[in-house]
Amino acid sequence: MTARLHHVGIAVRDLEQARARWELALGAAAGPVEQVPEEGVRIAFIEAGQSRIELLEPLDEHGPVARFLARRGEGVHHLAFAVDDLAAALERLKAAGVQVLDEQPRVRGNGDRSIVFIHPRAMGGVLTELVEYHRQGAREG
Amino acid sequence: MTARLHHVGIAVRDLEQARARWELALGAAAGPVEQVPEEGVRIAFIEAGQSRIELLEPLDEHGPVARFLARRGEGVHHLAFAVDDLAAALERLKAAGVQVLDEQPRVRGNGDRSIVFIHPRAMGGVLTELVEYHRQGAREG
Repeated sequence: MTARLHHVGIAVRDLEQARARWELALGAAAGPVEQVPEEGVRIAFIEAGQSRIELLEPLDEHGPVARFLARRGEGVHHLAFAVDDLAAALERLKAAGVQVLDEQPRVRGNGDRSIVFIHPRAMGGVLTELVEYHRQGAREG
Repeated sequence: MTARLHHVGIAVRDLEQARARWELALGAAAGPVEQVPEEGVRIAFIEAGQSRIELLEPLDEHGPVARFLARRGEGVHHLAFAVDDLAAALERLKAAGVQVLDEQPRVRGNGDRSIVFIHPRAMGGVLTELVEYHRQGAREG
Protein backbone atom coordinates (compact mmCIF):
# COMPACT_ATOMS: atom_id res chain seq x y z
CA MET A 1 0.00 0.00 0.00
CA THR A 2 1.20 3.51 -0.67
CA ALA A 3 1.90 6.10 2.01
CA ARG A 4 -1.01 7.57 3.97
CA LEU A 5 -0.94 11.08 5.38
CA HIS A 6 -0.82 10.33 9.10
CA HIS A 7 -0.54 13.78 10.67
CA VAL A 8 0.36 17.39 10.07
CA GLY A 9 2.63 18.82 12.76
CA ILE A 10 2.03 22.52 13.49
CA ALA A 11 4.42 24.57 15.61
CA VAL A 12 2.58 26.86 18.04
CA ARG A 13 3.62 29.25 20.80
CA ASP A 14 0.61 28.65 23.07
CA LEU A 15 -0.78 25.12 23.01
CA GLU A 16 -3.98 25.88 24.92
CA GLN A 17 -4.85 28.81 22.69
CA ALA A 18 -4.04 26.88 19.50
CA ARG A 19 -6.00 23.89 20.70
CA ALA A 20 -9.11 25.98 21.33
CA ARG A 21 -8.83 27.62 17.93
CA TRP A 22 -8.37 24.35 16.01
CA GLU A 23 -11.20 22.72 17.94
CA LEU A 24 -13.42 25.58 16.86
CA ALA A 25 -12.32 25.45 13.21
CA LEU A 26 -12.65 21.67 12.88
CA GLY A 27 -15.64 21.16 15.15
CA ALA A 28 -13.74 18.45 17.01
CA ALA A 29 -12.30 17.92 20.46
CA ALA A 30 -8.54 17.64 20.90
CA GLY A 31 -7.00 14.81 22.85
CA PRO A 32 -5.18 15.40 26.13
CA VAL A 33 -1.96 17.38 26.27
CA GLU A 34 1.08 15.10 26.39
CA GLN A 35 4.63 15.93 27.40
CA VAL A 36 7.33 14.58 25.06
CA PRO A 37 10.54 15.66 26.81
CA GLU A 38 12.82 13.75 24.42
CA GLU A 39 11.52 15.96 21.59
CA GLY A 40 11.36 19.08 23.77
CA VAL A 41 7.64 19.63 23.21
CA ARG A 42 4.15 19.44 24.64
CA ILE A 43 1.67 18.14 22.09
CA ALA A 44 -2.03 17.69 21.48
CA PHE A 45 -3.72 15.81 18.63
CA ILE A 46 -7.01 16.60 16.92
CA GLU A 47 -8.56 13.91 14.74
CA ALA A 48 -9.41 15.07 11.22
CA GLY A 49 -10.74 12.01 9.41
CA GLN A 50 -7.99 9.44 8.98
CA SER A 51 -5.34 12.11 9.53
CA ARG A 52 -4.62 14.21 12.57
CA ILE A 53 -3.40 17.67 13.42
CA GLU A 54 -0.50 17.57 15.89
CA LEU A 55 0.02 20.83 17.76
CA LEU A 56 3.58 21.24 19.05
CA GLU A 57 4.61 23.75 21.70
CA PRO A 58 8.28 23.87 22.75
CA LEU A 59 9.14 23.10 26.37
CA ASP A 60 12.17 25.41 26.26
CA GLU A 61 14.21 27.44 23.76
CA HIS A 62 16.57 24.70 22.66
CA GLY A 63 14.64 22.04 20.75
CA PRO A 64 13.99 21.85 17.01
CA VAL A 65 10.45 23.21 17.31
CA ALA A 66 11.68 26.18 19.36
CA ARG A 67 14.29 26.88 16.69
CA PHE A 68 11.65 26.57 13.97
CA LEU A 69 9.45 29.11 15.76
CA ALA A 70 12.34 31.53 16.20
CA ARG A 71 13.28 31.27 12.52
CA ARG A 72 9.93 30.92 10.75
CA GLY A 73 7.20 31.75 13.23
CA GLU A 74 4.13 29.62 13.77
CA GLY A 75 2.99 27.29 11.00
CA VAL A 76 3.23 23.81 9.54
CA HIS A 77 6.36 22.16 10.91
CA HIS A 78 6.23 18.74 9.24
CA LEU A 79 4.10 16.21 7.37
CA ALA A 80 4.11 12.57 8.51
CA PHE A 81 3.16 9.65 6.28
CA ALA A 82 2.54 6.09 7.42
CA VAL A 83 4.19 3.41 5.28
CA ASP A 84 4.10 -0.38 5.42
CA ASP A 85 7.82 -0.99 4.92
CA LEU A 86 10.00 1.82 6.17
CA ALA A 87 13.29 0.05 5.44
CA ALA A 88 12.30 -0.40 1.79
CA ALA A 89 11.14 3.23 1.54
CA LEU A 90 14.44 4.42 3.01
CA GLU A 91 16.47 2.29 0.58
CA ARG A 92 14.45 3.66 -2.35
CA LEU A 93 15.15 7.22 -1.22
CA LYS A 94 18.86 6.63 -0.65
CA ALA A 95 19.23 4.87 -4.00
CA ALA A 96 17.76 7.95 -5.67
CA GLY A 97 20.19 10.23 -3.80
CA VAL A 98 17.50 11.87 -1.67
CA GLN A 99 18.94 13.56 1.41
CA VAL A 100 17.60 11.95 4.58
CA LEU A 101 18.14 12.99 8.18
CA ASP A 102 18.22 9.39 9.44
CA GLU A 103 20.50 6.80 7.89
CA GLN A 104 18.57 4.09 9.75
CA PRO A 105 14.97 3.97 10.98
CA ARG A 106 14.78 5.32 14.54
CA VAL A 107 12.60 3.40 16.99
CA ARG A 108 10.17 5.60 18.89
CA GLY A 109 7.27 5.47 21.31
CA ASN A 110 8.41 2.51 23.36
CA GLY A 111 8.98 0.45 20.23
CA ASP A 112 5.58 0.87 18.67
CA ARG A 113 6.92 2.65 15.59
CA SER A 114 9.99 3.52 13.56
CA ILE A 115 10.56 6.83 11.83
CA VAL A 116 12.79 8.44 9.24
CA PHE A 117 12.93 12.13 8.40
CA ILE A 118 13.64 13.36 4.88
CA HIS A 119 15.50 16.66 4.64
CA PRO A 120 13.21 19.58 3.81
CA ARG A 121 15.66 20.64 1.10
CA ALA A 122 14.89 17.40 -0.72
CA MET A 123 11.11 17.95 -0.47
CA GLY A 124 10.65 21.55 -1.56
CA GLY A 125 10.90 23.00 1.92
CA VAL A 126 8.65 20.43 3.62
CA LEU A 127 10.12 18.48 6.53
CA THR A 128 8.76 15.01 5.78
CA GLU A 129 8.49 12.09 8.20
CA LEU A 130 7.89 8.49 7.19
CA VAL A 131 6.59 6.26 9.97
CA GLU A 132 6.01 2.53 10.16
CA TYR A 133 3.73 1.29 12.92
CA HIS A 134 4.63 -2.13 14.30
CA ARG A 135 2.28 -4.65 15.77
CA GLN A 136 1.27 -3.73 19.27
CA GLY A 137 4.10 -4.50 21.63
CA ALA A 138 6.45 -5.65 18.90
CA ARG A 139 9.91 -4.13 19.09
CA GLU A 140 11.72 -3.92 15.81
CA GLY A 141 14.89 -2.07 15.07
CA MET B 1 -19.26 14.39 11.39
CA THR B 2 -16.21 16.47 12.18
CA ALA B 3 -13.83 17.91 9.61
CA ARG B 4 -11.61 15.56 7.62
CA LEU B 5 -8.19 16.59 6.33
CA HIS B 6 -8.86 16.62 2.60
CA HIS B 7 -5.57 17.85 1.15
CA VAL B 8 -2.33 19.65 1.88
CA GLY B 9 -1.48 22.29 -0.70
CA ILE B 10 2.24 22.72 -1.34
CA ALA B 11 3.64 25.64 -3.33
CA VAL B 12 6.39 24.53 -5.73
CA ARG B 13 8.48 26.25 -8.39
CA ASP B 14 8.75 23.25 -10.76
CA LEU B 15 5.72 20.99 -10.84
CA GLU B 16 7.34 18.15 -12.81
CA GLN B 17 10.35 18.03 -10.50
CA ALA B 18 8.19 18.19 -7.36
CA ARG B 19 5.84 15.55 -8.70
CA ALA B 20 8.69 13.13 -9.34
CA ARG B 21 10.13 13.72 -5.89
CA TRP B 22 6.81 13.25 -4.06
CA GLU B 23 6.02 10.15 -6.11
CA LEU B 24 9.35 8.74 -4.98
CA ALA B 25 8.85 9.64 -1.32
CA LEU B 26 5.29 8.32 -1.13
CA GLY B 27 5.64 5.36 -3.47
CA ALA B 28 2.55 6.55 -5.35
CA ALA B 29 1.74 7.91 -8.80
CA ALA B 30 0.50 11.48 -9.14
CA GLY B 31 -2.59 12.28 -11.15
CA PRO B 32 -2.43 14.30 -14.37
CA VAL B 33 -1.36 17.92 -14.36
CA GLU B 34 -4.36 20.26 -14.48
CA GLN B 35 -4.47 23.94 -15.37
CA VAL B 36 -6.52 26.12 -13.01
CA PRO B 37 -6.29 29.55 -14.63
CA GLU B 38 -8.79 31.16 -12.24
CA GLU B 39 -6.38 30.39 -9.39
CA GLY B 40 -3.29 31.14 -11.47
CA VAL B 41 -1.79 27.67 -11.00
CA ARG B 42 -1.02 24.30 -12.53
CA ILE B 43 -1.67 21.50 -10.07
CA ALA B 44 -1.15 17.78 -9.57
CA PHE B 45 -2.58 15.58 -6.82
CA ILE B 46 -0.99 12.56 -5.17
CA GLU B 47 -3.23 10.28 -3.11
CA ALA B 48 -1.96 9.66 0.42
CA GLY B 49 -4.61 7.51 2.08
CA GLN B 50 -7.82 9.47 2.50
CA SER B 51 -5.93 12.75 2.11
CA ARG B 52 -4.03 14.08 -0.83
CA ILE B 53 -1.00 16.21 -1.56
CA GLU B 54 -1.80 19.05 -3.96
CA LEU B 55 1.25 20.46 -5.70
CA LEU B 56 0.73 24.05 -6.88
CA GLU B 57 2.95 25.80 -9.43
CA PRO B 58 2.12 29.39 -10.39
CA LEU B 59 1.22 30.14 -14.01
CA ASP B 60 2.65 33.66 -13.75
CA GLU B 61 4.04 36.08 -11.16
CA HIS B 62 0.74 37.61 -10.08
CA GLY B 63 -1.37 34.98 -8.31
CA PRO B 64 -1.47 34.18 -4.59
CA VAL B 65 0.79 31.13 -4.93
CA ALA B 66 3.38 33.17 -6.86
CA ARG B 67 3.30 35.79 -4.09
CA PHE B 68 3.63 33.08 -1.45
CA LEU B 69 6.71 31.67 -3.21
CA ALA B 70 8.29 35.11 -3.51
CA ARG B 71 7.69 35.83 0.18
CA ARG B 72 8.19 32.46 1.85
CA GLY B 73 9.78 30.12 -0.67
CA GLU B 74 8.54 26.61 -1.35
CA GLY B 75 6.55 24.83 1.33
CA VAL B 76 3.09 24.09 2.68
CA HIS B 77 0.70 26.72 1.34
CA HIS B 78 -2.62 25.65 2.89
CA LEU B 79 -4.52 22.87 4.63
CA ALA B 80 -8.00 21.95 3.37
CA PHE B 81 -10.63 20.20 5.49
CA ALA B 82 -13.87 18.69 4.21
CA VAL B 83 -16.93 19.52 6.31
CA ASP B 84 -20.55 18.44 6.05
CA ASP B 85 -22.14 21.85 6.62
CA LEU B 86 -19.96 24.73 5.50
CA ALA B 87 -22.57 27.40 6.26
CA ALA B 88 -22.83 26.22 9.86
CA ALA B 89 -19.04 26.06 10.20
CA LEU B 90 -18.73 29.60 8.85
CA GLU B 91 -21.37 30.90 11.25
CA ARG B 92 -19.60 29.25 14.17
CA LEU B 93 -16.31 30.90 13.19
CA LYS B 94 -17.84 34.33 12.68
CA ALA B 95 -19.74 34.13 15.97
CA ALA B 96 -16.41 33.47 17.71
CA GLY B 97 -14.82 36.47 15.99
CA VAL B 98 -12.46 34.38 13.85
CA GLN B 99 -11.13 36.30 10.85
CA VAL B 100 -12.27 34.67 7.60
CA LEU B 101 -11.30 35.58 4.04
CA ASP B 102 -14.76 34.75 2.68
CA GLU B 103 -17.91 36.21 4.19
CA GLN B 104 -19.96 33.70 2.20
CA PRO B 105 -19.10 30.24 0.86
CA ARG B 106 -17.66 30.51 -2.64
CA VAL B 107 -18.86 27.97 -5.22
CA ARG B 108 -16.05 26.26 -7.07
CA GLY B 109 -15.32 23.51 -9.58
CA ASN B 110 -18.44 23.89 -11.71
CA GLY B 111 -20.66 23.82 -8.64
CA ASP B 112 -19.39 20.59 -7.13
CA ARG B 113 -18.12 22.26 -3.96
CA SER B 114 -18.15 25.39 -1.83
CA ILE B 115 -15.16 26.76 0.03
CA VAL B 116 -14.25 29.26 2.74
CA PHE B 117 -10.76 30.34 3.69
CA ILE B 118 -9.85 31.24 7.26
CA HIS B 119 -7.17 33.89 7.64
CA PRO B 120 -3.77 32.41 8.52
CA ARG B 121 -3.45 34.98 11.31
CA ALA B 122 -6.42 33.32 13.00
CA MET B 123 -4.89 29.83 12.68
CA GLY B 124 -1.33 30.30 13.87
CA GLY B 125 0.10 31.03 10.45
CA VAL B 126 -1.74 28.26 8.63
CA LEU B 127 -3.95 29.25 5.69
CA THR B 128 -6.95 26.99 6.31
CA GLU B 129 -9.63 26.03 3.78
CA LEU B 130 -12.97 24.48 4.67
CA VAL B 131 -14.70 22.73 1.78
CA GLU B 132 -18.14 21.17 1.45
CA TYR B 133 -18.67 18.75 -1.41
CA HIS B 134 -22.16 18.76 -2.84
CA ARG B 135 -23.96 15.84 -4.39
CA GLN B 136 -22.72 15.20 -7.89
CA GLY B 137 -24.17 17.75 -10.26
CA ALA B 138 -25.98 19.61 -7.50
CA ARG B 139 -25.47 23.33 -7.56
CA GLU B 140 -25.84 24.97 -4.20
CA GLY B 141 -24.72 28.26 -2.79
